[in-house]
Amino acid sequence: MIVIKIGGSEGIDLDAVAADVASLVGSGQRLVIVHGGSHGTNTLSARLGCPPRFITSPSGHTSRRTDRATLEIFRMACAAFNMNLVERLRRLGVNAMGLSGIDGGLWVGQRKEAVRSVEDGRVVMVRDDFTGTVDRVNADLLRTLLAAGYVPVISPPGLSEKGEPINVDADRAAAATAAALGAEALLLLSNVRGLLRNFPDESTLIERVSRGEIGRASEAAQGRMKKKVLGAGEALGRGVRRVVIGDARVQSPIRGALAGAGTVFE
Amino acid sequence: MIVIKIGGSEGIDLDAVAADVASLVGSGQRLVIVHGGSHGTNTLSARLGCPPRFITSPSGHTSRRTDRATLEIFRMACAAFNMNLVERLRRLGVNAMGLSGIDGGLWVGQRKEAVRSVEDGRVVMVRDDFTGTVDRVNADLLRTLLAAGYVPVISPPGLSEKGEPINVDADRAAAATAAALGAEALLLLSNVRGLLRNFPDESTLIERVSRGEIGRASEAAQGRMKKKVLGAGEALGRGVRRVVIGDARVQSPIRGALAGAGTVFE
Repeated sequence: MIVIKIGGSEGIDLDAVAADVASLVGSGQRLVIVHGGSHGTNTLSARLGCPPRFITSPSGHTSRRTDRATLEIFRMACAAFNMNLVERLRRLGVNAMGLSGIDGGLWVGQRKEAVRSVEDGRVVMVRDDFTGTVDRVNADLLRTLLAAGYVPVISPPGLSEKGEPINVDADRAAAATAAALGAEALLLLSNVRGLLRNFPDESTLIERVSRGEIGRASEAAQGRMKKKVLGAGEALGRGVRRVVIGDARVQSPIRGALAGAGTVFE
Repeated sequence: MIVIKIGGSEGIDLDAVAADVASLVGSGQRLVIVHGGSHGTNTLSARLGCPPRFITSPSGHTSRRTDRATLEIFRMACAAFNMNLVERLRRLGVNAMGLSGIDGGLWVGQRKEAVRSVEDGRVVMVRDDFTGTVDRVNADLLRTLLAAGYVPVISPPGLSEKGEPINVDADRAAAATAAALGAEALLLLSNVRGLLRNFPDESTLIERVSRGEIGRASEAAQGRMKKKVLGAGEALGRGVRRVVIGDARVQSPIRGALAGAGTVFE
């Protein structure tokens, strides 16, 4: 079992990803696919006249400012990406089935009561944000679908313990999913080669990170990469043997990452 | 097994629908819920600066003009409604699971090569429309989910035989779903009392329609009601014993319709 998180940013070759999924599924590999909706949310927000806003935490993590109006846009953008990917996969003969983290209580966790945000050098508390974490994964639902021959394609939002939809980070949600399924590998594919020692210099790719080196790796990570390194650490800590942060802009991105292209955590 | 189609238009009391679903599921009734996205598509289209357009067929059926841009908006609006409904149901303890007709090849049919449209009294052919019918329902997928304890909540679009997403009428798709599952009843609930002899005079409700009377009932139907009567006839013709066109603006709309409130086809 392999869990693959696919980024939605520009430069990613979704056709190459879909072709690789079809080839692997055809050879009997069981896959679960996870994606986010960040890029699509930015585009749709702009079209709807609600420009995206972001929060930077004191520890330097960036996340979307998700008030209720943004949540509605976010989940529509996620659904649009999901249907687009399911459509492509099905045309290649993959029995894909899309679902969001709220369906069947797939991704349940805590909504953050308050989010700390650094604004003009000061820390302020944001209290009407619909952001949270995935603490429980309904692995039974995924096993039921896999056993019936479907390839699950999972999208945010998740669901809070109180039943509210929440914006959850798809990299970390993929890590939680891989851990819950006891996956042998988690691939985090996006529009970068992997973790770079000196971002954005792609010649400074870090090829291997052991568990003991994750803290240092996290310091090298910039922006969105911080969440990927965090997710990699969480997956390894919960029993996933191998996590690869790899490139989705190339041909055979999944086979490439499985062969070790990118940054391998193990 | 009961299949319930819920309209999305103004006046519908979604909380009353959800409460009734929770009560029935709690008493052991197996349900499949279907909805469309017409009202939400109109709203989102307007917000995105693409005002909705409609086609009237020579036989008087009205349908949405669905070019590719409209299809994208339509499926986002459907997904938004779906997540909203799943969210409400889950908060009431219903193990709801949303899926669209493309997921797992749930609703597959023919895309219309050309749609006949009456414009200024003349019939013209529209060839870039993504509209079609549901000819095959993946009942196995629904049975798998039902057996695992989930309540499926199904939304358009469907999928063409060539793998394109298509705008399918949710009333007729619900009829196809009820037939494929061998449902004992199909309920088509919206913001009208039922089929009216003289639309919009609600005192002229037609309470019973036998199979032999469907042709005449169809003549009384106006606008969207034509598709409901068509769906009712299709469901009866394929073995569903009872179809009720009923009111979703009232308390206990599902129990009401099951008790015969509205127009009963049998």
